[in-house]
Amino acid sequence: MKIGIFGTGMVGQAISGKLASSGHDVIVGTRDVASTLAHTEPNLYGFPAFSVWQKEYPLVRLGTFADAARHAELVVNATNGAGALSALQQSGASNLNGKILIDISVPLDFSRGMPPALSVCNTDSLGEQIQRAFPEVRVVKTLNTVTASLMVDPLQLADGEHHLFVSGNDAAAKAQVASLLAAWFGWKHIIDLGDITTARGTEMYLPLWLRMWGALGTGLFNIRVVS
Amino acid sequence: MKIGIFGTGMVGQAISGKLASSGHDVIVGTRDVASTLAHTEPNLYGFPAFSVWQKEYPLVRLGTFADAARHAELVVNATNGAGALSALQQSGASNLNGKILIDISVPLDFSRGMPPALSVCNTDSLGEQIQRAFPEVRVVKTLNTVTASLMVDPLQLADGEHHLFVSGNDAAAKAQVASLLAAWFGWKHIIDLGDITTARGTEMYLPLWLRMWGALGTGLFNIRVVS
Repeated sequence: MKIGIFGTGMVGQAISGKLASSGHDVIVGTRDVASTLAHTEPNLYGFPAFSVWQKEYPLVRLGTFADAARHAELVVNATNGAGALSALQQSGASNLNGKILIDISVPLDFSRGMPPALSVCNTDSLGEQIQRAFPEVRVVKTLNTVTASLMVDPLQLADGEHHLFVSGNDAAAKAQVASLLAAWFGWKHIIDLGDITTARGTEMYLPLWLRMWGALGTGLFNIRVVS
Repeated sequence: MKIGIFGTGMVGQAISGKLASSGHDVIVGTRDVASTLAHTEPNLYGFPAFSVWQKEYPLVRLGTFADAARHAELVVNATNGAGALSALQQSGASNLNGKILIDISVPLDFSRGMPPALSVCNTDSLGEQIQRAFPEVRVVKTLNTVTASLMVDPLQLADGEHHLFVSGNDAAAKAQVASLLAAWFGWKHIIDLGDITTARGTEMYLPLWLRMWGALGTGLFNIRVVS
């Protein structure tokens, strides 16, 4: 499948590396290709710069957001929350319209210190903002409740017996994404929460996720819904 | 143990009924005793009025918030979020100071329709507001992530293999509450998230809880943290 992935950070690397290794035709999109390639230092969490990481994943090509969107049958938004809307605008609505957009971005606000607050919540969500700005894009919010390495390998934890959520207005798009998440990564349990307004639920789970990360001492965890 | 429980709704009934049945000396506090006893109609969810419910739990006494607080060695705040601070103020700080307050209240805002939004979140929480308003009270936020019947009987679900959280500034109070939740109700797994600011995490989980309730068709569920 031809897939465009926005974002060169931890999430973009995890998703693009896994999909390219599985034979998909992946272009990662960034704001400025030369600037991205010029960065070689690891980030604050010790995660490698894209240019260093890419040496181990030569099948993953890098382009502009527009290059990635034009190439794609399906787009994954793995930018940080602050850059999500501008990345999508730069890619061009005409390159996105009619396509499924898997939105993983999290609207974190670091301006008030750690742990971060959210830049949008409660009566709106980033997922809804994206859907409103691009009404012809089939936005499916998902994967935003787990750490990057778990997104692409849920079976590494509790034999995959834990849950993921999808939110979106397009039922067929959500069903297709759920099938892809199972086929690509091995996700066993996906709960359809409803329309894109339910992205408020998973985005507002992040503050609890961040405190659990602190309490557990690892980001490699997830929740299993028991009923 | 002498326990004061603020709130005559679903949560107050579940907690006080269970504790009184276990031999604890319970007074439930309300704003206006005569008004509470005059109500006989079930609420919107079909839950019985306190006056009707109390006939099956004659050991549970009803008093004012101040009666309940004066009586109590330990106080449980099971009011709705909108009434929490005024209930505590009516009970009198001098009747609360130095005591543990288990705060279960949820800051739901129904003014914008269903599902409710939160009246405080992101950079503050109701738990923090209560702790700031009553600095000498040992506030422990907990039980606010599950439905009332599950609070007092976690073993009815998945053999109790699911999680509860505690938040608070007083480590000894949190440890005592965790022991009490195990002894009173059978809670097996309690995660200490940190100080009272971590109540933002569990309070902001409510929007996801509400959507899961809709998706699952039952409120009788919880999350198990797998790591």
